[in-house]
Amino acid sequence: MIIRPHKSSLQLLFVWHGSILRRILPQLGIVFVISVFCVLATPWWAHLFPGEVLNLQPFTLMGLALAIFLGFRNSVSYNRFWEARQHWGSLLINARSLTRQVLSLVSPLHADCRRHMVNGQIAFAHSLRHQLRNDDAQADLDRLLPAEVAARIGSARFKPAMLLLWLGETASQAHRHGWISDLQLQSMDRSLCTLSEVVGACERIAGTPIPYTYHVLLNRTVMVYCLLLPMALSSSIGWLTPLISTFIAYTFFGLDEIGEEIADPFGVQPNDLALGAICHTIETSLREMLDDGDALPLEPEPRHFVLH
Amino acid sequence: MIIRPHKSSLQLLFVWHGSILRRILPQLGIVFVISVFCVLATPWWAHLFPGEVLNLQPFTLMGLALAIFLGFRNSVSYNRFWEARQHWGSLLINARSLTRQVLSLVSPLHADCRRHMVNGQIAFAHSLRHQLRNDDAQADLDRLLPAEVAARIGSARFKPAMLLLWLGETASQAHRHGWISDLQLQSMDRSLCTLSEVVGACERIAGTPIPYTYHVLLNRTVMVYCLLLPMALSSSIGWLTPLISTFIAYTFFGLDEIGEEIADPFGVQPNDLALGAICHTIETSLREMLDDGDALPLEPEPRHFVLH
Amino acid sequence: MIIRPHKSSLQLLFVWHGSILRRILPQLGIVFVISVFCVLATPWWAHLFPGEVLNLQPFTLMGLALAIFLGFRNSVSYNRFWEARQHWGSLLINARSLTRQVLSLVSPLHADCRRHMVNGQIAFAHSLRHQLRNDDAQADLDRLLPAEVAARIGSARFKPAMLLLWLGETASQAHRHGWISDLQLQSMDRSLCTLSEVVGACERIAGTPIPYTYHVLLNRTVMVYCLLLPMALSSSIGWLTPLISTFIAYTFFGLDEIGEEIADPFGVQPNDLALGAICHTIETSLREMLDDGDALPLEPEPRHFVLH
Amino acid sequence: MIIRPHKSSLQLLFVWHGSILRRILPQLGIVFVISVFCVLATPWWAHLFPGEVLNLQPFTLMGLALAIFLGFRNSVSYNRFWEARQHWGSLLINARSLTRQVLSLVSPLHADCRRHMVNGQIAFAHSLRHQLRNDDAQADLDRLLPAEVAARIGSARFKPAMLLLWLGETASQAHRHGWISDLQLQSMDRSLCTLSEVVGACERIAGTPIPYTYHVLLNRTVMVYCLLLPMALSSSIGWLTPLISTFIAYTFFGLDEIGEEIADPFGVQPNDLALGAICHTIETSLREMLDDGDALPLEPEPRHFVLH
Amino acid sequence: MIIRPHKSSLQLLFVWHGSILRRILPQLGIVFVISVFCVLATPWWAHLFPGEVLNLQPFTLMGLALAIFLGFRNSVSYNRFWEARQHWGSLLINARSLTRQVLSLVSPLHADCRRHMVNGQIAFAHSLRHQLRNDDAQADLDRLLPAEVAARIGSARFKPAMLLLWLGETASQAHRHGWISDLQLQSMDRSLCTLSEVVGACERIAGTPIPYTYHVLLNRTVMVYCLLLPMALSSSIGWLTPLISTFIAYTFFGLDEIGEEIADPFGVQPNDLALGAICHTIETSLREMLDDGDALPLEPEPRHFVLH
Repeated sequence: MIIRPHKSSLQLLFVWHGSILRRILPQLGIVFVISVFCVLATPWWAHLFPGEVLNLQPFTLMGLALAIFLGFRNSVSYNRFWEARQHWGSLLINARSLTRQVLSLVSPLHADCRRHMVNGQIAFAHSLRHQLRNDDAQADLDRLLPAEVAARIGSARFKPAMLLLWLGETASQAHRHGWISDLQLQSMDRSLCTLSEVVGACERIAGTPIPYTYHVLLNRTVMVYCLLLPMALSSSIGWLTPLISTFIAYTFFGLDEIGEEIADPFGVQPNDLALGAICHTIETSLREMLDDGDALPLEPEPRHFVLH
Repeated sequence: MIIRPHKSSLQLLFVWHGSILRRILPQLGIVFVISVFCVLATPWWAHLFPGEVLNLQPFTLMGLALAIFLGFRNSVSYNRFWEARQHWGSLLINARSLTRQVLSLVSPLHADCRRHMVNGQIAFAHSLRHQLRNDDAQADLDRLLPAEVAARIGSARFKPAMLLLWLGETASQAHRHGWISDLQLQSMDRSLCTLSEVVGACERIAGTPIPYTYHVLLNRTVMVYCLLLPMALSSSIGWLTPLISTFIAYTFFGLDEIGEEIADPFGVQPNDLALGAICHTIETSLREMLDDGDALPLEPEPRHFVLH
Repeated sequence: MIIRPHKSSLQLLFVWHGSILRRILPQLGIVFVISVFCVLATPWWAHLFPGEVLNLQPFTLMGLALAIFLGFRNSVSYNRFWEARQHWGSLLINARSLTRQVLSLVSPLHADCRRHMVNGQIAFAHSLRHQLRNDDAQADLDRLLPAEVAARIGSARFKPAMLLLWLGETASQAHRHGWISDLQLQSMDRSLCTLSEVVGACERIAGTPIPYTYHVLLNRTVMVYCLLLPMALSSSIGWLTPLISTFIAYTFFGLDEIGEEIADPFGVQPNDLALGAICHTIETSLREMLDDGDALPLEPEPRHFVLH
Repeated sequence: MIIRPHKSSLQLLFVWHGSILRRILPQLGIVFVISVFCVLATPWWAHLFPGEVLNLQPFTLMGLALAIFLGFRNSVSYNRFWEARQHWGSLLINARSLTRQVLSLVSPLHADCRRHMVNGQIAFAHSLRHQLRNDDAQADLDRLLPAEVAARIGSARFKPAMLLLWLGETASQAHRHGWISDLQLQSMDRSLCTLSEVVGACERIAGTPIPYTYHVLLNRTVMVYCLLLPMALSSSIGWLTPLISTFIAYTFFGLDEIGEEIADPFGVQPNDLALGAICHTIETSLREMLDDGDALPLEPEPRHFVLH
Repeated sequence: MIIRPHKSSLQLLFVWHGSILRRILPQLGIVFVISVFCVLATPWWAHLFPGEVLNLQPFTLMGLALAIFLGFRNSVSYNRFWEARQHWGSLLINARSLTRQVLSLVSPLHADCRRHMVNGQIAFAHSLRHQLRNDDAQADLDRLLPAEVAARIGSARFKPAMLLLWLGETASQAHRHGWISDLQLQSMDRSLCTLSEVVGACERIAGTPIPYTYHVLLNRTVMVYCLLLPMALSSSIGWLTPLISTFIAYTFFGLDEIGEEIADPFGVQPNDLALGAICHTIETSLREMLDDGDALPLEPEPRHFVLH
């Protein structure tokens, strides 16, 4: 999600609270309680088992594996997020290019064909968004496509792919009517291929999470690290332990949580991609190019200060 | 493998147990036994060889090489996994694009040609999967291709490449019959070239493992590191040694094992790519586009909660 | 911004002062004051709470998360900066290629068409710059385009996209007049597609900041790290604390600040891209190719020693 | 080199011994001797120069530069190795695509043209291999090409580039005879361009080593680090020094050596690319597609358990 | 620069001395002097300010920022170096492809056109080299181009771009004369577009250095780190300080210097790209393909054992 337009820090703090901090609060609480307990128990433990005190040295060793796990997960998650964003950017770019081709090649006399090609792309963007979020795309399809096409597409399993098939058939028909040349059909076909790549890439990102074993290994290492930490700190820095160990746990759990959140960038959490806003940009930009007299759609409303 | 649809943690734990933990249990056991032995031997050793005690400092130095090895192996393995996934995604994308081209360019009158082109691509996906897993592709070839073609492809050494050759000949024939234009043949040829890239890239990943020397160096470093660790820890944290050193060994051996598993992403282990499920998506999507009246294939059944 | 031509260190120092150091001075001041206070308070604290002294060990643990955050943010920011630069480089490359195509394919008899195509691209570069910086593009549009076109583009929401649409129409017209062949129109269309990619990519970079949560996590970790540091150092190195801790804070705050500055590379801060200078290069190079007798534009003037 | 088919660990151990371990044995021996000497000299030194004892702290500082050097060299070397592998994969892919184009477009009546195009590509792969390894390509050229062509190519300085020129002329001739259309010639030309990219990229990798200064800096840092290490360890862990410091030296020298070996991936050392085996795959696959009745070539024989 | 052919270590040592070591010698000298002074002053200081001794702990913290800076700068610099090399490789590849197209498509009857196209590309490579190094390209232009063209190009601001314009016009003329078809003109145009990309990319690398602030931050951190180091070491390892701290300074200053040198890969320092040698390869290879009877140019002479 892009929270650009609402950059007042109070709202953002709220948003952030709403997403990451709220989810890691239980773990932080546990670390805090254990810290207090460890500080209280230290003299008693030292009395009972002299020489069995945990110091900070093993944490440097564990830190090694942790740094590899967290750094790896972090960059992989961000790459997934950014790759997804790039493909949606590519969707906008190619929709504009295809629209430019349609508008400059197909004569304004064939208004229906022009309108179908442009609205078909808008519907394509919306249906891809709905597929990635497991929403119902029917309302957008009905709004943008001829009735029988909307019905046919609506009943398909892979709606965006079927929409591209329909766009391909429409372009092919325009070619058979002699409205566009063989070469111009090929140019449009190339744009359709790129849109097809966007669908495939988004399905790939949505359908292939980071191998689950990484998740398990990372979670366990962070957990053990943060739970053992107070034991080692309490014998060394005393009552500063709860403060320091909760803060260290906050950074590690936060890093883990944000990584998990953006690894699946098509959700509706505050740090996910604002697919709704991107679809809105696509619709506005294509309609402006088509210049069909209709009012442009309204700006999307943020919910809880966050665009979705 | 994608375990998306079965995200209950109990099953996943089972899966994970079945793959990584089971394989590193022997090493963990050895580390645990050595730890206990070291704690018991520490006073005796200190008595016999005063001043010859191993402390944790050399482990920071070894940790340097270990971090470079493990971080490198980890990211290289994941890149191989992800590159393989991207090529299979590209297979889906291009199969859809080629199907779209076939269906919008070749008239429905030539139903045989359309069916051959689409089924040929489905057979191509299956035969690539079988080649990468050293399975027998004949059943899928017989199911999808005309009998004499299935026989010819089935006896070839490089089945997917021969299938692309056959698809190229079929398209070329359609062109000679005048069903598609010169330019449309070129568009299809470009899609065939991309499918050819997928074959070549998958063969490259399957045939060129990470240089074996890395494997040897990494395994030895991890092994020596984890076996010496209890000696150093026991003189410092006493009876906490078995717990801590087994946990540290768990993270390092686990990181080593997962890296080795996903470095060869075409296997049938739980963290490998679910080629079967991807082939199923390709078959379903292409058949839906072809709309040939046949029932779509059933969803693949997970074995031991894992798709293959 | 590129400060190549003014490499005298005094000016650069000034520039740098003007941007990074000035913004982190308040934080550095706070760290310095806290350092002095800690050194003075150390004996008094040690007397009151013996055994409650913060040492440097927890900072190694915090340093782990910090290194991951800072390294990640740093490379992501630079990649955004460099990707933006690459797209503007691609703009120059494709503008030159399209101009070469126009000049070698369209006969000099159709001087208007040639001039429109070339000036349209210059206007495109300027309008993209103005859109990314939220400036008013009208002056440049009026200077370079026919009056009615300048008015139409000036009132659009997505000016660069509309300009490409106009360029596409102009090329399409040239094709209808028979000045360029079908194939040559396709070549130009491909160049327009690449220009469209530049617009989309720049909009993507400008519109999708690094997830805000990273920003919050990073800022807090750096802040807590630098504020606690003097407490730990004062008990160990005494009056050297203010010097050392201010210097360490300087490197961390500086690294944070530069990362934030170049993460949004389209601004007008000294380390941002000198879009004005790049636009000037594009205009000069294209006009030189067109060779239209007009004087080439003047070199852009640096403000405060910095090109914008 | 790919040692896939010989995965018995004994042979691999042998191979590995033959390559890396044998070359770093002298350095390891020196470190071992110095270690023993240091342990013996420690009491004597401590007596003579009290307070002048080297501890392990400076090694953490040196370790910083070492980690940057080794990590950098390691990933750069591997990237060179993998990029080289990708280009050879691309050679296979494009040779297959071009063969597919030739076989489906050129009628079987023109058997000579088909055979020349296919054999020319096989000769191209072999001559590129020989150029990269500074071998004599004449035997393979004579075997695959018409006599006068083999003579002309054999006397050229840049054999693969001249072969592509000949393939381009052959295709151009087929076009002049009317066997392939203008558009089909263009498709083949594109494949030839990609083969040209492979040549250029391999020449680039072979001709531009990692800047030599990195080599010097890295070698010296590793050397000084490993030679000073025993002095610091001996005062701390006594007679365990020879064991530990030799092992640490083994990992660093091994990492340095493997990096150097795969940085130049076209050699004939065990970890280099098995260009011979790849050429064999290309020849087998293309001949199978051509189906010219000749026996397919034999599998390449591993020398000392290693394919070359 | 590629020093491949002169790999005797004595010469290389000389080269290396000439470039990196000579430039960092002053800094190393300062560190050495400060080290000696610190060792002498340590007892006196400890007597005067007991408890105010700098130990090595703050250096671990500073090392964090240093590792991020140096690692980042190192990889960014190398990527610039390697990207520049790739573009020059791409220049060779595309010059060969365009030459192959010219030679196989344009009949030998039109010898002038063939010679102009090939020599124009050689002149293009030389003029790009001269532009990147701010040399005078006139001698090479006069040698390779017709007189009036050499004069026109020689007076242009962006010589390589103007040369591509001239090549485009020459190809366009060949098309108007009917020597090449529409489609073949398009193929050549695509090669010209790629050459245009090479120019743009090289201008981008040469014109956009790494943000200057990184340079300032890195230099200061390295400087402060190395100057404070002796103070901390002297109290711990005594008279070994000058040796160890000079060596550590050597690695850090060397890493800084090599990074700065290859970040601007178009210079004439020993580690820069040997553009002269690459241009020579391009000229030799293209002339061999053209086979115009002239003697091939001589091998470039290394100056001070270094190719430029």
